[in-house]
Amino acid sequence: MTRKQLKIAVIGGGSSYTPELIEGFIHRYHELSIRDLFLVDVEEGREKLDIVGALAKRMVEEAGLPIRIHLTMNRKEAIRNADFITTQIRVGLLEARARDERIPLTYKCVGQETTGAGGFAKALRTIPVILDICKEIEELAPKAFLINFTNPAGLVTEAVIKYSNVKSIGLCNLPIGTNMQIAKMTNTDVSNVDIEWVGINHLNWTTKIQVKGKDILEEILNKSPGTEGLNVKNIPDFGWDRDFLRSLGSLPCGYLRYYYMSDKMLNEELDSLETKGTRAEVVMGIEKELFELYKDPVLNHKPKQLEKRGGAYYSLAAVNLITSIYNNKKDIQTVNIENKGILTCLNNDVSVEVNCVIDAEGAHPVQIDKQPEPHIRGLLQVVKAYEELTVEAAFNGDYDIALQALTVHPLVTSVDVAKPILDDILKENRDFLPQFH
Amino acid sequence: MTRKQLKIAVIGGGSSYTPELIEGFIHRYHELSIRDLFLVDVEEGREKLDIVGALAKRMVEEAGLPIRIHLTMNRKEAIRNADFITTQIRVGLLEARARDERIPLTYKCVGQETTGAGGFAKALRTIPVILDICKEIEELAPKAFLINFTNPAGLVTEAVIKYSNVKSIGLCNLPIGTNMQIAKMTNTDVSNVDIEWVGINHLNWTTKIQVKGKDILEEILNKSPGTEGLNVKNIPDFGWDRDFLRSLGSLPCGYLRYYYMSDKMLNEELDSLETKGTRAEVVMGIEKELFELYKDPVLNHKPKQLEKRGGAYYSLAAVNLITSIYNNKKDIQTVNIENKGILTCLNNDVSVEVNCVIDAEGAHPVQIDKQPEPHIRGLLQVVKAYEELTVEAAFNGDYDIALQALTVHPLVTSVDVAKPILDDILKENRDFLPQFH
Amino acid sequence: MTRKQLKIAVIGGGSSYTPELIEGFIHRYHELSIRDLFLVDVEEGREKLDIVGALAKRMVEEAGLPIRIHLTMNRKEAIRNADFITTQIRVGLLEARARDERIPLTYKCVGQETTGAGGFAKALRTIPVILDICKEIEELAPKAFLINFTNPAGLVTEAVIKYSNVKSIGLCNLPIGTNMQIAKMTNTDVSNVDIEWVGINHLNWTTKIQVKGKDILEEILNKSPGTEGLNVKNIPDFGWDRDFLRSLGSLPCGYLRYYYMSDKMLNEELDSLETKGTRAEVVMGIEKELFELYKDPVLNHKPKQLEKRGGAYYSLAAVNLITSIYNNKKDIQTVNIENKGILTCLNNDVSVEVNCVIDAEGAHPVQIDKQPEPHIRGLLQVVKAYEELTVEAAFNGDYDIALQALTVHPLVTSVDVAKPILDDILKENRDFLPQFH
Amino acid sequence: MTRKQLKIAVIGGGSSYTPELIEGFIHRYHELSIRDLFLVDVEEGREKLDIVGALAKRMVEEAGLPIRIHLTMNRKEAIRNADFITTQIRVGLLEARARDERIPLTYKCVGQETTGAGGFAKALRTIPVILDICKEIEELAPKAFLINFTNPAGLVTEAVIKYSNVKSIGLCNLPIGTNMQIAKMTNTDVSNVDIEWVGINHLNWTTKIQVKGKDILEEILNKSPGTEGLNVKNIPDFGWDRDFLRSLGSLPCGYLRYYYMSDKMLNEELDSLETKGTRAEVVMGIEKELFELYKDPVLNHKPKQLEKRGGAYYSLAAVNLITSIYNNKKDIQTVNIENKGILTCLNNDVSVEVNCVIDAEGAHPVQIDKQPEPHIRGLLQVVKAYEELTVEAAFNGDYDIALQALTVHPLVTSVDVAKPILDDILKENRDFLPQFH
Repeated sequence: MTRKQLKIAVIGGGSSYTPELIEGFIHRYHELSIRDLFLVDVEEGREKLDIVGALAKRMVEEAGLPIRIHLTMNRKEAIRNADFITTQIRVGLLEARARDERIPLTYKCVGQETTGAGGFAKALRTIPVILDICKEIEELAPKAFLINFTNPAGLVTEAVIKYSNVKSIGLCNLPIGTNMQIAKMTNTDVSNVDIEWVGINHLNWTTKIQVKGKDILEEILNKSPGTEGLNVKNIPDFGWDRDFLRSLGSLPCGYLRYYYMSDKMLNEELDSLETKGTRAEVVMGIEKELFELYKDPVLNHKPKQLEKRGGAYYSLAAVNLITSIYNNKKDIQTVNIENKGILTCLNNDVSVEVNCVIDAEGAHPVQIDKQPEPHIRGLLQVVKAYEELTVEAAFNGDYDIALQALTVHPLVTSVDVAKPILDDILKENRDFLPQFH
Repeated sequence: MTRKQLKIAVIGGGSSYTPELIEGFIHRYHELSIRDLFLVDVEEGREKLDIVGALAKRMVEEAGLPIRIHLTMNRKEAIRNADFITTQIRVGLLEARARDERIPLTYKCVGQETTGAGGFAKALRTIPVILDICKEIEELAPKAFLINFTNPAGLVTEAVIKYSNVKSIGLCNLPIGTNMQIAKMTNTDVSNVDIEWVGINHLNWTTKIQVKGKDILEEILNKSPGTEGLNVKNIPDFGWDRDFLRSLGSLPCGYLRYYYMSDKMLNEELDSLETKGTRAEVVMGIEKELFELYKDPVLNHKPKQLEKRGGAYYSLAAVNLITSIYNNKKDIQTVNIENKGILTCLNNDVSVEVNCVIDAEGAHPVQIDKQPEPHIRGLLQVVKAYEELTVEAAFNGDYDIALQALTVHPLVTSVDVAKPILDDILKENRDFLPQFH
Repeated sequence: MTRKQLKIAVIGGGSSYTPELIEGFIHRYHELSIRDLFLVDVEEGREKLDIVGALAKRMVEEAGLPIRIHLTMNRKEAIRNADFITTQIRVGLLEARARDERIPLTYKCVGQETTGAGGFAKALRTIPVILDICKEIEELAPKAFLINFTNPAGLVTEAVIKYSNVKSIGLCNLPIGTNMQIAKMTNTDVSNVDIEWVGINHLNWTTKIQVKGKDILEEILNKSPGTEGLNVKNIPDFGWDRDFLRSLGSLPCGYLRYYYMSDKMLNEELDSLETKGTRAEVVMGIEKELFELYKDPVLNHKPKQLEKRGGAYYSLAAVNLITSIYNNKKDIQTVNIENKGILTCLNNDVSVEVNCVIDAEGAHPVQIDKQPEPHIRGLLQVVKAYEELTVEAAFNGDYDIALQALTVHPLVTSVDVAKPILDDILKENRDFLPQFH
Repeated sequence: MTRKQLKIAVIGGGSSYTPELIEGFIHRYHELSIRDLFLVDVEEGREKLDIVGALAKRMVEEAGLPIRIHLTMNRKEAIRNADFITTQIRVGLLEARARDERIPLTYKCVGQETTGAGGFAKALRTIPVILDICKEIEELAPKAFLINFTNPAGLVTEAVIKYSNVKSIGLCNLPIGTNMQIAKMTNTDVSNVDIEWVGINHLNWTTKIQVKGKDILEEILNKSPGTEGLNVKNIPDFGWDRDFLRSLGSLPCGYLRYYYMSDKMLNEELDSLETKGTRAEVVMGIEKELFELYKDPVLNHKPKQLEKRGGAYYSLAAVNLITSIYNNKKDIQTVNIENKGILTCLNNDVSVEVNCVIDAEGAHPVQIDKQPEPHIRGLLQVVKAYEELTVEAAFNGDYDIALQALTVHPLVTSVDVAKPILDDILKENRDFLPQFH
């Protein structure tokens, strides 16, 4: 591949995460020659974009690199002829997230940003916007890769697979974060760590954890992780039942606590709601602080405080992925992609999160050694059924499909709560759900 | 087929249901020439067997038929060279059922004879006994058909498929009962009613309800059934949410209330436990009454009071099935059978409950018009995953597999309850679970 | 179903076969109350239609039945509001068939009406016409059943499945003819014969042959059939190799001689071509005779000479099928229908020829006991690949797809002959292949 | 992985190819620290082993490396605790190959070492020996990798998959050879060439040919390759039909000439047989010359003349594979491996030849972008059916299965030739086919 100078568009460029992404691009500039970096946002985010954009410019300048930073509200301008487009948007802002977390709790169901009824509401709001972006990409940059960070990443990726022709890869920081944690636990460089993942976004299990080619999964299982750090920041770190882990023979991702410890997690959320408000409200505070910091005209690097925000390694995941595509690297990364038969227990056209070879053409799944056993298979299948219905409802605004989606979700305990939760979601998100009108 | 004189063995012959079966055989004698009917039971059931057996003899005598009734504790004698073997056993008697219903409720999970953790316990006790019977059939009557009524019928059928070579068909009265109810609702003869079922035992949906070749399913759905009789006796008759039914486009069987109305059903069970005790305890009372009636030496027909017992039409289902095999009828009946690809969302070697052509060779599934949509598919898949694990655990007594089975069940809310429920089941059923020692 | 008076349209009504069909309708009138029977043909067939139509009217009159026979060139008039539409057309007449048989022989490949390159040519001509008829049915009689006899019946059925919404069943006389032959061989009534077929039209195997519920397949195989009548009229009756039959464990249909005895069949065709001309030319002679007979104004029944024509039992197959749909009979017949998973080795959307339950809604495949072993599977798969490509090429006139179709066919030995055969077919059928211009 | 010193066993070590393998090990010593290299052969090969072994020792000495070469007839000694075992055996020597090539030609069928009836005979002889080796590996070196070069490599790999527990990878030089040819054609280093293969050993198609990440397949197809070198030495280089290549949209491997140009290839073979004898006989001459050269006591490198022998790059393929496993490289190589769902048109437990990620645990297939279209699918399926039957027959010596295998093969034109070919093969290979006695 002739090394062309790249144009990258970051949609949701005003996000508090952006400095991390900028840092990543700067560190990798030697193998990723970006010429134009467009940070694009919506009118409501103009102020944030200006603050973050100015910081980004200072960072690039400090690094002495010829990357041109562009700030714009004109999404089409940003997308036109871009090579890579990343999305990190939040339709309805943190206010909407607070509602997503609160509504299900009212009916004694888990209220979480990406899992359960909360993630469902977020999907309904987000998918139409992403599909609008896809239409613009199809028209203005048909060869571009869409790198989607926006949550719920699995559902969003599936919508793009099913309803657009854009080359798209969904990205989550959980797999790379686990690699980093394992590297730390075993005192080795992360390049020595290989993990096999089976599942879908935020519902996956590690079936192999290799350090220098040697599988240490069983060792890890016996150490009862979860009490010791194999988790993500925003999930309460309840320890796993040892017998249960042994019976599984694989390590569930942190989000699986919502399924395996539903009662405990629900109670924690209910308590937490009373004492601290929703997680969204906590994050609002952190964000406010961060933007204060970003305003500092002498700040020219990513401030340490950003780490409190959660989402660690998002930037690393993104930069790794873009670099491997650009350089036809053929290394292995864990991303969200069309199933096409890798998990035979799911339909071919759904999104899965698995190890892929990354080359100039995108991501090619590597076959897993063994298809999942009934326990994992069953849970995957029922949650994927929920996801398929949710993607369909988000696309066509069909109430019946939406009701079926919520009802089949294992964290929504019956039709008697599914229906009022759905009705509340539709009412409170009215402005963001044109497809349902 | 040359019409040979039949030998039929009824294992669990001392059951209070037996008079209904006898009545069925008598009514159908013109096309089902039974010569020898063995009623076989275990030592603890000798008294009941004597009572029921005497009544059976009086019934046959009254009918003036040359059927020879044999009462025996010698199972092998009954099985040897039999043409059909039916099972209606209850390992651990109603006392065990009472425990099955009570243990899960202690942990705020549904406690039911065939569904959820209660059905799980029953499967663990029953499957080894059925497989022992299968070994005897393989040896003593390898060409016989095993007609299994014993609950949980789907799990038992699956165990026989996976771990024996016996020709076996599992039978439930729910499908035939629904046909009867539809016939009544539409004032027609049951022979004019054809229903397409999709699913597995006690977890199925009607996707077509035809009366004289015309589909009236939509009409039925709009009439909000469930409040009007499309249910089985032992399930509280809470009405279905109309919007939900419409969204489904199919009619769930009565047992699906445990999934779609979990909270309501659980609360009803908890209340009921306090006021009336478990359903097992209610049934004990009914049974006692029935056996008092049966003792009456002038009684020579099935007493009307048997209807209170539940299980209506079991006898009709059994007699229909045996008659169609015997006469190579090639009519359609709904039975439990190996999947072999009929429901493509489930493995080939699991049991399903679907419409079959019944001929001299047994049951041959008729292809359904449309594979289930995601909502039904997802629920089927997760419950079948539970069933596969349960069958495996029942066969090999593996604690880990048993724990995975209970944990993946949608009606067991978390590992935190799955584990103590499992431990209680194993402890309280110790005498009936040799495979776990 | 309320018994409505039927309207039936016979497209290709001027066929020499029609008297047999009329006879069938007359015999079955007591359960098939036809009011209007439209015989429709194209302008070139007007003379034949008049002759056959007049005979049909005399037959109905003789039978004293109130069936109204209509003769027309107006296909739409015939289709409008029809209940059943049957097709028995021959695009390009027997002249085209003669070319189909001759072209492949020029290149030392089998030249046959429905198999190999000959059947391929016939499919290219026929499918567009059938799809035109389907468009009219969709518009004018959307609830009608299309009963297709037109060869190649499997390919035509598959085209209808893939490119129309018409309810369609493809019909061949081979299965019913085999039942009749078995009944004769075993001196029993045909109602006692049940055969399980596995495969696709003109490429299928019997895997069970039951007489009164008892399987006699092995007996039949040992009798080395094929020398004794289990064949169709138009295929040279070379005997099967006994060892080969035993190794297969199933009885191949007569057309499989083209695959299993390619050399012998090819040589026979080459010889036959020299001495008698093509089969088409032989048939032309027979047809001419038949129409002379039909003209006789006192003839009021099907003349015996029609039997020489081949195609025995077509009428019986058609009348059986229509009667079972009309009366919601739920009996079992062997027809061509969408696969939908019955043969798991083939795609879901292709046509297969298998046993089906026939009811008011059409044909529902009965699951076969065992999926085909590798030998049968492999042959089925490669021929079906040819069929899929042929249907696609017939629909969209794509030269490349057509070339791939012929090249993958086992009876076309290489690209070096596939290409000139294809070019000759396209040239000589130019007037009938508008899709390729 | 701690770098342990390796033990490698080469079964068939007396082969004329061995010097190339030795050269490969020497060149790669810096990343492949071999301590012990066992060359093992059978008694009949002792002389050749001595000659080749002495040359190998001189080569290692010249290179100044501490690799210890061991020559032995004791296979178990060689296998015990080996890390890698490679096989390059020829059961029945070149004399048997001559028979494999001659017998089918007698019946006017293609006679080739690995394809058609010749490859079938070779499989029957070879598979039992390889499975014996596997039993020894299971016992003496259960963690070893078996790297199998022995032809027919696909059939041998499938036998190992189905009938042993050995970790096994089958290897062919065709994919690597194609990479080398493409590199040469495009004047680039082979490391810049990535090819996607679809299919099974000696029956595969390239569906992507990337040079530096850019797909040039279409360009290659338009250049009408095959006349210009994309072929292997032992296959007549007839040019492809340009229209046919375009219609395929992929480049067939050289062996596909036997299928796509059957007549031409057969005629070439018949001519060649008369003028030059079989290919085996030609090779005997070359081998004789080679061994004369090898005897030269001053020769201490691989002689150039070995290239005439065919089999170019075998050594490179083997050394690449072993090195990547040893170093957990995670690069991509094209090998024969269990399908497990990569080609959904074939069963899971068959062997396929596809791109794999090679790591410390072996080979993990990379998902292909698009499942094969009907033309390729159909041919793959029918040949794989032949392969499945052949593997089964080779294992259990079942005449019926063997007959079915040959009959379903597209290059065996009918049962009438399949049977005498089979009978000749069984008779002439009697000493090597104990499983058939």
